[in-house]
Amino acid sequence: MYEYSRPVFYYETDQMGVVHHSNYARWLEEARSYFFDEHDLAYVVTESLGVMCPITDLNVKFKFPAKFGDVFTVKLRLIKYTGVRFRVEYEIVNQDGKLLLYGESAHAFIDKELRPIALPKVIPDRHERMKKLLEQQL
Amino acid sequence: MYEYSRPVFYYETDQMGVVHHSNYARWLEEARSYFFDEHDLAYVVTESLGVMCPITDLNVKFKFPAKFGDVFTVKLRLIKYTGVRFRVEYEIVNQDGKLLLYGESAHAFIDKELRPIALPKVIPDRHERMKKLLEQQL
Amino acid sequence: MYEYSRPVFYYETDQMGVVHHSNYARWLEEARSYFFDEHDLAYVVTESLGVMCPITDLNVKFKFPAKFGDVFTVKLRLIKYTGVRFRVEYEIVNQDGKLLLYGESAHAFIDKELRPIALPKVIPDRHERMKKLLEQQL
Amino acid sequence: MYEYSRPVFYYETDQMGVVHHSNYARWLEEARSYFFDEHDLAYVVTESLGVMCPITDLNVKFKFPAKFGDVFTVKLRLIKYTGVRFRVEYEIVNQDGKLLLYGESAHAFIDKELRPIALPKVIPDRHERMKKLLEQQL
Repeated sequence: MYEYSRPVFYYETDQMGVVHHSNYARWLEEARSYFFDEHDLAYVVTESLGVMCPITDLNVKFKFPAKFGDVFTVKLRLIKYTGVRFRVEYEIVNQDGKLLLYGESAHAFIDKELRPIALPKVIPDRHERMKKLLEQQL
Repeated sequence: MYEYSRPVFYYETDQMGVVHHSNYARWLEEARSYFFDEHDLAYVVTESLGVMCPITDLNVKFKFPAKFGDVFTVKLRLIKYTGVRFRVEYEIVNQDGKLLLYGESAHAFIDKELRPIALPKVIPDRHERMKKLLEQQL
Repeated sequence: MYEYSRPVFYYETDQMGVVHHSNYARWLEEARSYFFDEHDLAYVVTESLGVMCPITDLNVKFKFPAKFGDVFTVKLRLIKYTGVRFRVEYEIVNQDGKLLLYGESAHAFIDKELRPIALPKVIPDRHERMKKLLEQQL
Repeated sequence: MYEYSRPVFYYETDQMGVVHHSNYARWLEEARSYFFDEHDLAYVVTESLGVMCPITDLNVKFKFPAKFGDVFTVKLRLIKYTGVRFRVEYEIVNQDGKLLLYGESAHAFIDKELRPIALPKVIPDRHERMKKLLEQQL
């Protein structure tokens, strides 16, 4: 399971005194982005090859609020990959190991005209690495 | 069904040329906030009475991207209210009626120490209005 | 002087219980965007013609905090336009007329490769409208 | 001079393909926050003692855009401290040492009712550390 940590930023809090919920989707994206970077599947390269992978589904449960002063860890796992779509599972915990959030996101590969594409056809070597990555995670 | 519309802001876009997905959770909150305002259940008053209603679940499907230049409409409906929790259902469409997103959020009432509370005990008149609102929506 | 108003959104607050300062730059952009829209100089069209106008300078004084529940008004005025650059002056007030912020931003026209361009050469009719707009404002 | 670095996050970009300017104010805050943390002046403690230090002035020049894939460094220096106000100077550079932004921010100490306060009276030990920090920086 891949882990990504950083401190909460002040501007991520709201007047409830906790992190605003919209930021968690951003933390998941940060973690996903570093995860793919580390496995030679960096977004910045994929996009330069004309392929984007927007989110299509987001299902999360908010269990406990993060606060300014906390350091959060996103634990993520690639749980599905079909060549045209992939699915990622997440847990976010704080520095005390307390569960803050769990959930899943789904993503599809599209081109710059927002049309669905098959990764095996368009970037075969990335497809191979995605397949291997899935096997490692399961 | 309650409807809330506004144009997309430039800063809500990302380098894919579409609205970043984290903003949709914010649009749902904007719509929720106006919805409760219009039914004499304004957050600003509820919070001044020591009651907050953070999100506990978010389940959304992203169907089509919003762009800068678009005017979106959030259509929302209160679908559940128990005195301690409530649930809201959403659709977001663009100016052409194209479906951008659909989903649900769940919320719980808590006090300033983040402990769950029962609205009927703490703010009975708000409880009555929530009940009526639910009946109207179904 | 052009005026743009809307309510504060909940997610714009931080744990100080007031609007986080980074949002004011966004409000200025919202106001600028509507201002140009209303004068047939919409960003969405300008960008489709290959011209962008990023901010080059931002100088603001924060005088009083906006809060959730407030309705703010941005008052803006185009104060300079040279064909390659323009400058805008702002005041933000709340619903009681209390001054929240004042300041200025400067902007330059660039192409998609981020090179400076002269509006009179590239989009002459927009240049004419910018000139007229400047005269009206002074 | 204190330095703070991190990669650009995807959600910080806009449809110009570069980081939206409103995010730079957030990067400055991140850097400020870590800077004070490292000098035993953490915001999280200061706020727990009832003292906040909101921004009162922001003056920045945007010289070159940051992009997704970049790693930025904020270089900051405390340049003034009076007991009731302080002033910070910044430069942001990218991984190639290219200057992205320079500028200054000013801050005031206030209490929870947003009234100005004098740090020497309210938290004398923090005042001493601020004074030493200023001397070190000059």
